[in-house]
Parts: sequence; C-alpha cells; structure tokens
Amino acid sequence: MKKKNVLKSNYPYLPQLKEKPSELRQDMVSQDWVVIATGRARRPHFFKSQTRTKFSLPKSKCPFDNLKQAGNPEPIAIYKAPHGQNWFIQVLPNKFPAFSYGVCPVVKKSGPYSWLEGVGFHEVIVTKDHDRQIAKFSDEEMNLVLRAYQERYLALKNDPCTEYVLIFHNHGFEAGASIPHPHSQLVGMPVAPPDVVNSLRGSQRYLKQHKACVHCAMIKWELKFKKRIVAENDTAVAFCPFASRRAFEIRVFPKNHSSHFELISEKERLGFAQVLRKALKSLFGGLNDPAYNFFIHTTPTKQKDRHYHWHLEILPVTSTWGGVEFGTGIEISTITPEEAAKYLRKF
Amino acid sequence: MKKKNVLKSNYPYLPQLKEKPSELRQDMVSQDWVVIATGRARRPHFFKSQTRTKFSLPKSKCPFDNLKQAGNPEPIAIYKAPHGQNWFIQVLPNKFPAFSYGVCPVVKKSGPYSWLEGVGFHEVIVTKDHDRQIAKFSDEEMNLVLRAYQERYLALKNDPCTEYVLIFHNHGFEAGASIPHPHSQLVGMPVAPPDVVNSLRGSQRYLKQHKACVHCAMIKWELKFKKRIVAENDTAVAFCPFASRRAFEIRVFPKNHSSHFELISEKERLGFAQVLRKALKSLFGGLNDPAYNFFIHTTPTKQKDRHYHWHLEILPVTSTWGGVEFGTGIEISTITPEEAAKYLRKF
Repeated sequence: MKKKNVLKSNYPYLPQLKEKPSELRQDMVSQDWVVIATGRARRPHFFKSQTRTKFSLPKSKCPFDNLKQAGNPEPIAIYKAPHGQNWFIQVLPNKFPAFSYGVCPVVKKSGPYSWLEGVGFHEVIVTKDHDRQIAKFSDEEMNLVLRAYQERYLALKNDPCTEYVLIFHNHGFEAGASIPHPHSQLVGMPVAPPDVVNSLRGSQRYLKQHKACVHCAMIKWELKFKKRIVAENDTAVAFCPFASRRAFEIRVFPKNHSSHFELISEKERLGFAQVLRKALKSLFGGLNDPAYNFFIHTTPTKQKDRHYHWHLEILPVTSTWGGVEFGTGIEISTITPEEAAKYLRKF
Repeated sequence: MKKKNVLKSNYPYLPQLKEKPSELRQDMVSQDWVVIATGRARRPHFFKSQTRTKFSLPKSKCPFDNLKQAGNPEPIAIYKAPHGQNWFIQVLPNKFPAFSYGVCPVVKKSGPYSWLEGVGFHEVIVTKDHDRQIAKFSDEEMNLVLRAYQERYLALKNDPCTEYVLIFHNHGFEAGASIPHPHSQLVGMPVAPPDVVNSLRGSQRYLKQHKACVHCAMIKWELKFKKRIVAENDTAVAFCPFASRRAFEIRVFPKNHSSHFELISEKERLGFAQVLRKALKSLFGGLNDPAYNFFIHTTPTKQKDRHYHWHLEILPVTSTWGGVEFGTGIEISTITPEEAAKYLRKF
C-alpha cells in the first residue's frame, strides 16, 4: 500500500503542542490573512481585566465642555436633544486639521518622489455630555449622531477637492483619543485611501467572479451560521468577522445592499443606530469599557458605481501591535470570533 | 488676460491656516500615502518628553534571565560573547508560538471563507544582559546578533511548509514587548505576508518601468540629497524615508543591491551592524529611549528572483493609531523626515 505523500514541517523543536495550533484566516474582501492564536488561552475575562490608562480631564479644562468659553470657532451645525431644548450635538471645524482649505492639489515631484498638498476639511462632532459616552446613548440619541454624520457628509461630498470622506470615532486613550469628552470626526481628503481602494477592489473582484456582492454573501452566510452574530434587527446586523483582525472586532452592516452611506433612509438609519448601540453596549459590558475606534467604509464621493456595501467597523483595543503586525500586515487575535461573539451576546 | 482656471476647496470654515498645510507623500514602493501634518508644531523635544509606561521586571522573575531555572526548553543555538567565554546569545523555541509544528497546510473552506492551519516555527533570540538593550551594544555585539539572525534563517529557510521568515525585535511596552529582557524573534509562516507581497509587487513594477531597482534608485537619491540621512558607511545607509509612516521612522539598507538577507557577507554584515547600531543609538539619545519595533523585509524563502532589495525598518512608537490610521491605512506623522533626520544626526 502506498503511503500518502504529505510534507511535514522539519522543525525539530517542540514537536507536539498541547493546545490547538493557530489558524490563518483569509478576509474574503481584502484577501489579507489574520492569525487566530488561542494558544495563550486567553479567556474573555482576561480582556475584561486588562489595565487601561486613566484618562480623564476636569470639565473646567475640557475644550468641548463649554465650547464658546474654550475659544472654539463658531459651530457649523447644532442639533437639539431628541426631547428637549438644549443642544445635544455641535459640529465644529477641527482647530488642528489634518487637511485644510486650499486650491485642489495636483501631484508634484520631489526628486523621484510624489506628493500632494493636504487640501480638504476636518470637522469634530461633539456630543453634549462630558462623561456620557455613546455606548450609553439611547437609540434615538445614536440615531441623531448618525444623522449628523449623514448631513455633514451630504454637505461636503461635492467639494471639488475631496475624493473620500472618512467618518470615525476614537474612544479612550489607547485608541488615540486626545480629548476624553465624546466626539467623532469627519475628514475630507484629496486621495481615496489605500484600505478603501483595496476593499473596493476586492468587492469588484468578487462581483466579477460570482455575480454578487461579497458583503451580501457574507451577511447571508453569517445569518445562517449564527455563531458570530452579536446583534441584529430587520435592517442591520452586527457580527464578529470570520477573519477578525482583533479580538472582539465587530462589523455592522445594513442588511439590504447599500453602496453609499449618505443615501441611508430615516428608517434604515434608526435600525442601524439600534444595532450599533447594542454592539457598543456589549463591548462596554463585556470588556469593562475598553478603548475602541470605529469608522465607516463607504463608496468614495465621486464614484457612482453601486457594487460596494458600506458598513461600520469597530476595533476595540485588545492588544498592542508589535513586529509581526508592522512587519507583515498580519494581525494576531488571541480569541476566536465565534467565542468572542458568544460572550458579547450576553451583555 | 485669461484667468488661470483653478479649483478651490469650497470649505467655508477656517479659510486661512497660519501654519503650513499638511502634505500627502507617496511611498515609491507600496504607492501608499502618508500624511505629514506639522500643524500642531511638535518640535523634536516634544517626543523626547513623551510619557512611557514603566516597564521593568525583577531579574528573579524574568523568564530570560536564568534560562534553565525559568523552565525554558533546551537552547537551539548558543553564541559566546565576542571576547569572553560566557554565552552572549541563546536561541530558544518560543513557549507560546504563533506558528507550530505540523503537516504543511492546504487551504480549507469554512462556508464561503478560506483558512489554513498555522504551521511553521517561532524562535526567541535572547541576549545575555537583562538590562542592556541592543542600542547599547558594541558593533561587534550587534554583528553577533545579526549573525544569529542569519544562521537561524539559513537553518530554517528550506523548511517545506515555510513561505516567509520574519525576523523582528520589539523594544518597550508600547511596542508590544511582553518581556523587557532584550530579545528578538524569528517566525516562519506558511504564507507570504501581505505587506511583503505588496512591497515585492511595487519593486517589480518599478523594475519593469525603469529597468532598475526601486530601492537602489531611492538610496542613490538620498545619498545625493543628504537631508534625510541618519548614518552611513561604505556598505550600509540609514535614512528617514521621504514618505515616513511615523515620526522618526528609519530604514537601513545595504548600499549594494542585495535581494536575500541570508546571503550577506561577513564584511557587509559588520558594516550593516555599525549603521544599525548608530541608528538605534540616535533614537535612544534623541527620543530618550523610546519604544520601537524593527523588522527585516527580504525576498520570500522559496523565491529565487533577485529584483528585491532587502532592508530593515525601524518604527519608533511616537504616536497612537486612531480612526484615521485604522479607517484608511494612511498614517499621520507630525514631523517631517528632513527635520527628524537633522535632529537624530546629533546623537
């Protein structure tokens, strides 16, 4: 009988691991790999007890508490609280913009290199309460935040210099927030960013091969498989992705195919707000108020093509990047998304 | 007279910035963009005074101080000190490997997703002194570390399951080091990592267009331009790249075209060690012992093609990633590489 011809790693050390070997999982869209290495046996409660940098600022020193008094520029937009007369959201120009007003840039040369002037805009979307983070918001309040995102997006999407509008939120010191008072940001930039371009390309590739939207296929599978779902309702779904880059990563999608975030209807937005709020609440409860970033990936402003499926990605800070991540682009997560979702559903 | 037809950003707020606008610079190899935003006017000394997490471990609790007593597996290789009888470097299998022994994996399916078993190896390269970080090494000691890297690489490059061997070093808590005792790591993985594939692709694209190595072109320009050079000698050069992803990023290259790190000659290795040591010393002095990661980018193990130019990238931890970086893949640096290099050359 002929033996099956299998190649084995010839590595002579530690021939047998007690734990399960790690898994390399491939993201369906970007085709990037992630590693799920549970060998260090970190149970969900490990993440709950991680130390965090104390990060508070007295109200009197907060530039977002009394906006006028702190010398902020005039607000661009003001939203009242859902049931009240006081303001709940103010939109301001960022005092330290990453991109700023100017003539639409053209690529210039510096020796063999290329560069552009950073023309665009950078706004801050501040919510009223100094200490009340958005994981604590009601569905209506979260819907109002999303409405502010959408309306600012619509106001700025036709800027002639802008190729992409990024909407994001940093919560906590470890997530790069420089001011603890809850606020989101909106950045208009003159190039389509590499991660978005890559995601669009992956979406296009899948469409050509399968005549379907890659994210719709993923959502359909996740709703059937159930084990990675964190929250859902009629219009939106949140799940820990199969190829989670980070322990407890969550992505939130509109269930029906939708390419441009800014075209979301009032009803869909409320449904999305509900699921997003549930996802943030589960992180808050399950991981004891972790730092996190979330951002929206949507079709670039000038692109009319509707094949992309916009969504929101939540990346809790559950690890520190080291040489592997920076040297390869492969992130290592120490918990499976299946276990992460099962745990998060309890909160 | 006809007016020149220029498009302007129609953003009506903060029409005029006092500071210089930011710059988007494009990496010649990956074609990714970075932002250099000096608007917050952070001078070099700002970085020197950044707070760092206290990160020490008494010798008695260090798993790398008395290796045997701490229950480590038998060393794979031992190197004596350049002028002495005691060991200076020991190579050990990692007790918590990201990749481990097994049958060479094939891609498997899980619903619409693809995954692989994490087969490979993961070694730790420990240097003797608990408190003496490699920025403090002599040229000869640094050369010995590089020799250990090279010899382990040569011993493992023919492993049938391995597509790429990553060599890296994490220094400091903020850089993801979990043990402060100086150590490097060597990981063999069954896929070529996305960042390396991307870099190889960029190198190939430039070769086709210009009939030259992209990194050789860059080195030639930097040596002529001088303003971004941190250190150099006959065989190697260290500079802050034009499109620095991070404040004070440094890349070290062999001056002559060289595709495979493991083929470095004894003379070239000593020259490279000297320049690497100077670069690390300038970071230590200039930024007051910052956390950093470095890693080697070289041609994948099974690839014979010689168009790539191997090098080492040093990423000091000078900022925290937030929504912009995670949402776009665009990193924001708050100092120009020209100013960073000028400052670093003093140390």
